[in-house]
Amino acid sequence: MPEIVTAAMLVIGDEILSGRTRDRNIGHLAEMMTAVGIDLKEVRIVSDEEEEIVAALNALRARFTHVFTTGGIGPTHDDITADAVARAFGVPCEVDGRAYAMLEASYAARGMEFTAARKRMARMPRGADHIDNPVSTAPGFRIGNVHVMAGVPAIFQAMLDNVIPTLKTGTKLLSATVHCPFGEGVIGGPLADIQKAHPDTIIGSYPKYQDGAFWTELVVRSRAPDALDRAREAVEAMVAGLAARQ
Amino acid sequence: MPEIVTAAMLVIGDEILSGRTRDRNIGHLAEMMTAVGIDLKEVRIVSDEEEEIVAALNALRARFTHVFTTGGIGPTHDDITADAVARAFGVPCEVDGRAYAMLEASYAARGMEFTAARKRMARMPRGADHIDNPVSTAPGFRIGNVHVMAGVPAIFQAMLDNVIPTLKTGTKLLSATVHCPFGEGVIGGPLADIQKAHPDTIIGSYPKYQDGAFWTELVVRSRAPDALDRAREAVEAMVAGLAARQ
Repeated sequence: MPEIVTAAMLVIGDEILSGRTRDRNIGHLAEMMTAVGIDLKEVRIVSDEEEEIVAALNALRARFTHVFTTGGIGPTHDDITADAVARAFGVPCEVDGRAYAMLEASYAARGMEFTAARKRMARMPRGADHIDNPVSTAPGFRIGNVHVMAGVPAIFQAMLDNVIPTLKTGTKLLSATVHCPFGEGVIGGPLADIQKAHPDTIIGSYPKYQDGAFWTELVVRSRAPDALDRAREAVEAMVAGLAARQ
Repeated sequence: MPEIVTAAMLVIGDEILSGRTRDRNIGHLAEMMTAVGIDLKEVRIVSDEEEEIVAALNALRARFTHVFTTGGIGPTHDDITADAVARAFGVPCEVDGRAYAMLEASYAARGMEFTAARKRMARMPRGADHIDNPVSTAPGFRIGNVHVMAGVPAIFQAMLDNVIPTLKTGTKLLSATVHCPFGEGVIGGPLADIQKAHPDTIIGSYPKYQDGAFWTELVVRSRAPDALDRAREAVEAMVAGLAARQ
């Protein structure tokens, strides 16, 4: 039997909701999850408000195997993710001795002051494990099924590379893409019939619009390679049949 | 008194969650909302599953002034947004006579068959109003405080342009950006003091990392122009003071 492992993502940050910054982490996480056999099922973006973060986190961590957060773990007053995660888990948020020592040594080595703001980055919920940050030392952390990472894309990606080998993964959802030169209005009927005849697959139709014309990307997905092949062949035959009639 | 009007967005589509398609609508909606004086407070991305869409929609429409959805209103079997929205509102999803006539005339004018799949695009919750689609005829719709729009970016943007003049808007959240050549660890302490001294503003710090060095974009936001100016001046003075000490 295929094993299904799910995930959700919580993006924390006013700057995404105001349009000032375009998120670049959702697409990256989505691609990585698909590659390793984890189904990303939901993403939420919330503002830098503790109540909002706590409510979203508790909703997501109860429903999905893994939860990933980005944003709000830096040294400034608007970085409240560690406090919010601690509150969601009902544990204190406190200075982690090992993180403090790592940061202290890193700033000393660079001849930089270990300011009160920088010390904030050693705070995490009691009982959390580190997620290594090879870019700028200050660690992310994992508590329960929640992985808390930076919002800066280069750091998020480096942290995620450290997290992925530790994750429980499931049977990969395989996919095959069929380019279709026809719009959805042409293929909608026969495609629905193919979906019905291949219940072990998920067939998606993604409309594209360019230069006044529609075309479609048809994507067949399945955890069973044989079922995937059969459905892909049916979709290809449908497209070829329509092309022959033009 | 400033008037606060809020919004949420619901992005519907497996293709975003699988990483196949990178969302391009969230950032556009976020910018447009900020420009007209509506606070985008939450975004959710859910899969093409009716239960998920209904639950997310009911959560969001109860909490925010406006809700905007993208995706799932095309002619194929995986386009289930109209049904899900109808179910969320407890009304039937049925063929809208005016939408049907518009689509029928449009396909006739282009010499194209009005297929069963295309007829699906005339379905909407009973009592919904149209959102005009100048690109490809098939309308979006509004029911209650929910605006249902296409996922194809060109069509979404055109529909949104038609929706925005109809929306209740609030006092604009003004913003001023101060470029800061220092990382957050340097400015975190004094910036928190400035935030405390200017409670009518929201001061955000957005770390940027490039070529091995951190710098920061500091953003002051307020609905009161005078408060904005005072806080911006304080932030600029802090940055100038730090630069003078280097």
